[in-house]
Amino acid sequence: MAKQSGGFTLPGESGYEELTLRMAEKWGADVIRDSDGTVLSDEIVHAGYGIYSTICIIRDHNEWANQNRDKLQQTFLCTPPAVAEGETLAINLMESFFAEQFQVNDTPEAFRYWEVYDRTTNQKLNSDQWEYGKADGTVTIKAAVPFHKYTVSFLAYRIWEEISMYNHTTNHWDKEHLLQIDPRYPQTQEYLLGWMRNWCETHPDTTVVRFTSMFYNFVWIWGSSERNRNLFSDWGSYDYTVSALALDEFEKRYGYPMTAEDFINKGQLHVTHMPGTARKADWMEFINDFVISFGKKLIDMVHEYGKKAYVFYDDSWVGVEPYNGRFHEFGFDGLIKCVFSGYEARLCAGVDVPTHELRLHPYLFPVGLGGAPTFAEGGDPALDAKKYWNSVRRALLRAKIDRIGLGGYLHLVENYPDFCDYIEKVSDEFRLIRSFHNAGKPYAIRTKAAVLHSWGALRSWTLSGHFHETYMHDLIHINEALSGLPVDVKFISFEDVKKGALEDINVVINAGRAGSAWSGGENWKDDEVVTILTKWVHEGGTFIGVNEPSAVEGYDTYFRMAHVLGIDEDTGARVCHGKWQFTPEDKEGILPAGASVGAKEHLYLTDGKARVLLAAGAGEIGKVAGSDTVRSGSSGNDTVLDDSSGNGAAQDSSSGNGSSGGGTGELLPLVCVNEFGKGKGIYLASFRVTTENTRMLYQLIRYAGGEGMSGLYMTDNLYTECAYYPESRKLVIINNSDREQTTSIPAEAGMRTVSMAAYDTVFVEL
Amino acid sequence: MAKQSGGFTLPGESGYEELTLRMAEKWGADVIRDSDGTVLSDEIVHAGYGIYSTICIIRDHNEWANQNRDKLQQTFLCTPPAVAEGETLAINLMESFFAEQFQVNDTPEAFRYWEVYDRTTNQKLNSDQWEYGKADGTVTIKAAVPFHKYTVSFLAYRIWEEISMYNHTTNHWDKEHLLQIDPRYPQTQEYLLGWMRNWCETHPDTTVVRFTSMFYNFVWIWGSSERNRNLFSDWGSYDYTVSALALDEFEKRYGYPMTAEDFINKGQLHVTHMPGTARKADWMEFINDFVISFGKKLIDMVHEYGKKAYVFYDDSWVGVEPYNGRFHEFGFDGLIKCVFSGYEARLCAGVDVPTHELRLHPYLFPVGLGGAPTFAEGGDPALDAKKYWNSVRRALLRAKIDRIGLGGYLHLVENYPDFCDYIEKVSDEFRLIRSFHNAGKPYAIRTKAAVLHSWGALRSWTLSGHFHETYMHDLIHINEALSGLPVDVKFISFEDVKKGALEDINVVINAGRAGSAWSGGENWKDDEVVTILTKWVHEGGTFIGVNEPSAVEGYDTYFRMAHVLGIDEDTGARVCHGKWQFTPEDKEGILPAGASVGAKEHLYLTDGKARVLLAAGAGEIGKVAGSDTVRSGSSGNDTVLDDSSGNGAAQDSSSGNGSSGGGTGELLPLVCVNEFGKGKGIYLASFRVTTENTRMLYQLIRYAGGEGMSGLYMTDNLYTECAYYPESRKLVIINNSDREQTTSIPAEAGMRTVSMAAYDTVFVEL
Repeated sequence: MAKQSGGFTLPGESGYEELTLRMAEKWGADVIRDSDGTVLSDEIVHAGYGIYSTICIIRDHNEWANQNRDKLQQTFLCTPPAVAEGETLAINLMESFFAEQFQVNDTPEAFRYWEVYDRTTNQKLNSDQWEYGKADGTVTIKAAVPFHKYTVSFLAYRIWEEISMYNHTTNHWDKEHLLQIDPRYPQTQEYLLGWMRNWCETHPDTTVVRFTSMFYNFVWIWGSSERNRNLFSDWGSYDYTVSALALDEFEKRYGYPMTAEDFINKGQLHVTHMPGTARKADWMEFINDFVISFGKKLIDMVHEYGKKAYVFYDDSWVGVEPYNGRFHEFGFDGLIKCVFSGYEARLCAGVDVPTHELRLHPYLFPVGLGGAPTFAEGGDPALDAKKYWNSVRRALLRAKIDRIGLGGYLHLVENYPDFCDYIEKVSDEFRLIRSFHNAGKPYAIRTKAAVLHSWGALRSWTLSGHFHETYMHDLIHINEALSGLPVDVKFISFEDVKKGALEDINVVINAGRAGSAWSGGENWKDDEVVTILTKWVHEGGTFIGVNEPSAVEGYDTYFRMAHVLGIDEDTGARVCHGKWQFTPEDKEGILPAGASVGAKEHLYLTDGKARVLLAAGAGEIGKVAGSDTVRSGSSGNDTVLDDSSGNGAAQDSSSGNGSSGGGTGELLPLVCVNEFGKGKGIYLASFRVTTENTRMLYQLIRYAGGEGMSGLYMTDNLYTECAYYPESRKLVIINNSDREQTTSIPAEAGMRTVSMAAYDTVFVEL
Repeated sequence: MAKQSGGFTLPGESGYEELTLRMAEKWGADVIRDSDGTVLSDEIVHAGYGIYSTICIIRDHNEWANQNRDKLQQTFLCTPPAVAEGETLAINLMESFFAEQFQVNDTPEAFRYWEVYDRTTNQKLNSDQWEYGKADGTVTIKAAVPFHKYTVSFLAYRIWEEISMYNHTTNHWDKEHLLQIDPRYPQTQEYLLGWMRNWCETHPDTTVVRFTSMFYNFVWIWGSSERNRNLFSDWGSYDYTVSALALDEFEKRYGYPMTAEDFINKGQLHVTHMPGTARKADWMEFINDFVISFGKKLIDMVHEYGKKAYVFYDDSWVGVEPYNGRFHEFGFDGLIKCVFSGYEARLCAGVDVPTHELRLHPYLFPVGLGGAPTFAEGGDPALDAKKYWNSVRRALLRAKIDRIGLGGYLHLVENYPDFCDYIEKVSDEFRLIRSFHNAGKPYAIRTKAAVLHSWGALRSWTLSGHFHETYMHDLIHINEALSGLPVDVKFISFEDVKKGALEDINVVINAGRAGSAWSGGENWKDDEVVTILTKWVHEGGTFIGVNEPSAVEGYDTYFRMAHVLGIDEDTGARVCHGKWQFTPEDKEGILPAGASVGAKEHLYLTDGKARVLLAAGAGEIGKVAGSDTVRSGSSGNDTVLDDSSGNGAAQDSSSGNGSSGGGTGELLPLVCVNEFGKGKGIYLASFRVTTENTRMLYQLIRYAGGEGMSGLYMTDNLYTECAYYPESRKLVIINNSDREQTTSIPAEAGMRTVSMAAYDTVFVEL
């Protein structure tokens, strides 16, 4: 196929003009960008490429910020609980917080929002029960109940922009600390609009202004101790949007006040991984509304100068919300996402915006974010690039991305020709794939899936932040697996279920720890949701539950969908109930060899009708054996039952020496399938993304939809995947593994078999 | 020391008169008993021994029972939830229950108590919304909400006495099924009083009537499927005490009705391992009151005939309650307990009754209850006896037991002379120990402990049943460890705490899963309890929390004593909070070599001040290494931190390939100590009884009380223990291990060192 160019953003570098233009040619770049700390020379700027310039609108204004310290951004902080040993108790406000990040805001308008709580009784103290000592930064409770514990919630200015703080601290920078100003104030808005106009005036060559997000950083609270520097971080939380002014305006608009406690939440704050509250939803709407309204003024101005405005979906993204249905109101021309994982590529691809661009890893830095060498002694940037591309490529096969690009210091690539060659290959592959998408959608199986959680579409694909920050949640693993599967996926909320969202859905996935936003928590107390889902399964749908799906206290079962799943978790009330015996068996071969599921305690079959496909002993990981005929829960043993039968005394006998201890060899179900009406419940005790488990999920979805364990455009080698583009008649096969693979794909045009090098991509015309 | 005799109950056997009298002599028996299925011959009866005769008052009356089937004992049963697929739903009542055990009671007075529930909404249906079809044993819901689920709660007669049923089923007996009659009915009472009088008249030689418990069996509900025969069993539950008559009488007495749902509890029933309700407490009181009042009539009659009345604390013990302060009202002369474990010996020893007797294992049966051979080919009854004695002996050192004995068929011992010799040794040891107790209490350390849970003294030592039935609860392991330690122990409730029970206590232990009776569940919502405990620790007490101590939802911490423990569990709300780093270190050597603690997820240090003594990776068991200088959380590695530092990416870095997964090498604290005022919080992630962990608990208690890691009458070899009786000046040293041990004991009279054979007991005069 003919080599194409375009859709590639190259980081240019002054002083390396020849290299810049040579790489632009090699990689097919159509745009050259600056990076944090780089400036493009005239030679580059006038070489005929589009020019991206990055701006971070709320920092890099230290002079103005220092003259307007009352307009710095803020947050609520809450002191750790302190126990009163007598009738007075003094609490130092800043003792546990990083003094370089926060400064107490005790201005009269902020002080009104301070709160002192008795955390033993969870009651707020009246303001006459405590007093603030400005001199020593201490709140003194005057009539404490001895041995109750107390906290103080207060407003604090943030005096060091968090990303600047991180880079300083991690990389031992010694520059001026950057401040961040809050556009909430009319004076800030006036200043920023003037600054933006001046910027546009002075950057005539820039074709695209890349906003490094908008106004408010994700929450990142640092502590005073080096043993616990990171007190709290959440990419989806709105704590960094508060100020007395915002709180006052909120009350005027919504008719009720938000209090410190609405943010502090008993000191726990509100993590995105837990279901939100109605008040939090109002606050998010309030902030989103502001970010759109003032953001749009900036974007309009950029457009006024004939430039495009892209947003980099990162650090200061709070309030931007690309998935709440209002994103188009900003008027952005593009969204750029830096990607480690497939789900991040899908997150980018799914946003309602003209241009979707990915920033690939590795960045052109000597060391990666993890501290390992990249473009330095000991690094292998070409291999890094292969692995990263391996993660995101499968997602690009499923959803169209318009542009890719790199960031960092271009001169670093000079000594790595293999890296330069590999990026050329990636760019070419990307452009080919993009061209297939342009012709028409890739083939997908009939079965359509929805992920059900309490945020619904608002948190499509992502949970909150990067994979390594959210790896403890089953759902991020599921999202990552789904990101490259030939299955149409939607993200729906419990409200959506009630509004008929299941109509065109065949599989609903609900995955997470009890009480979490991902499992759904209190949302499962809604009988209507349970009834609708039950009916939908009975009529042919499949409910896939992972870990603690539909779990909530107060009912006859902990999993409210237990009647569909055929399995439930004992919270302790059923410790004396007998357990159904079972023999794990996967007659239909639904679980591929090498798939694995971590054990979970306290599970029990409800009515004994669910078929257990995989089981394990307590604390083990259930692994599907390599042979097709032996599918057991214990690697290396013929059957799981044989493995544990030596230690089954606890269940069966009523003798035994007390001191010798009870059996711990009880067999725990890990994967089971329960027929329910015309549909099914499928349960997995956990889900961790691996190549084998991704295939397991795919096969479970196919099985749920009645599409069998193999079929059109499905590779017979799970270490490979493929995508077929009917309009282009192109089949793209990818090797996700680090070794050579041979794979066969049944196509309407007949079987195709290819052998592929590690990580390779093969394009076949059908 | 001179050989004593007495205090031993021998199972006699007709046809083996010579053997009976020979063994009586050898073992120093003063009493000969019959056993289930044996009758004593005149030769034995008139040989000058006391004679025990066993009666089970509520069974063995099949003729009368068959003529009075309306007076059989009953229970509530609840059908498994059934999902309505349309607007009517038929539920077969008996489908999931064992037809040989239960028979629907649809008499008008019972039918009034039936209930049908919508388990989707948890609402009771009006009686006009369903109808009962007697012919097919079905309840039909007439206007079901499609896809809601429903249950029927109904009264059923129990038509097979459960112990008889178990023996039939397990040992394939083929006798008539025994029925059990309910003494609640005046006619039953009249019949039983007549029967008892006749029995006394016809058993003139019996000196002790042994009641095989009283009237009501522990709950044991069997199912129709062989894959799940045991639907529910709980030694402490009162379900088997119900009848329409009892329910009617309850309402008259208490002024409110108990409903089926009060017992059924959403189908979960009420396990002893969960906190009770006020209504359940009323019902228990109501039943206990009845069991005492009618039981006393039988006991008085026994006394009238010059016989003693002992109660065997077993199967039909429900309503007897030896620990509720009313047991003395029965007028029993003795309590007999069959013992597998040390805690059962303490349970027996602590009851307010003149004579405390233990029935030792193994019973003289060919096979044990677990099915393994005992007095049969392949069995080694002498070794079994050693192991059982090893379990209970250490408890006998701490608390006085008056009698021991055996049960079963005496002729089986003929071929096992080593067994006969060992029992002689055990009998002699027992009598010596008893004589020391008679002279005065054994030495105990100053530190006094209380176990705090929601049942308090009512469930002293036991939880509910035998060790092998309750092994999944940390507390039974703790009770077993405590049963032989030289520490005074009380069992207290939350009410007791408020009434000043902590006054003479130095250590409070709270151990169990969140929500359980042992952890305390909702009891921890009582601010007063938390405040009293906080003050008590601050003034010098130590709160030892195990697993999920003081856990309840709704506060700033999950463990309400987190401020004392310095550690808490994250229920999901803190998944984005940073964790305090720590280096596990046990400078004071509190944890003995070989001690181990199973890992628990989601724990975090609250303020970083707690000292972590032991830690492990996720899913591992933390083991204390054998060397005194290396005390790490991972067996075989120098330090735990080194062990896991290779996989710490999730915490520290912000890079990494999505698909490669997050770190699972996070270090989990397992044991920590937190200074709080003059006192301490000590946390253990779990507790399993082993010889080493028993020593760990002892050392933690000594440490809490400021008594150091060694001291008077403490062996320096943890595989041995000792007891010192100051009044007798006798030191008893026991080897709890299966190999020879040498141990030294510091006494006021100087250091004593002994070498001991496996399992041996050594008596030293000081």
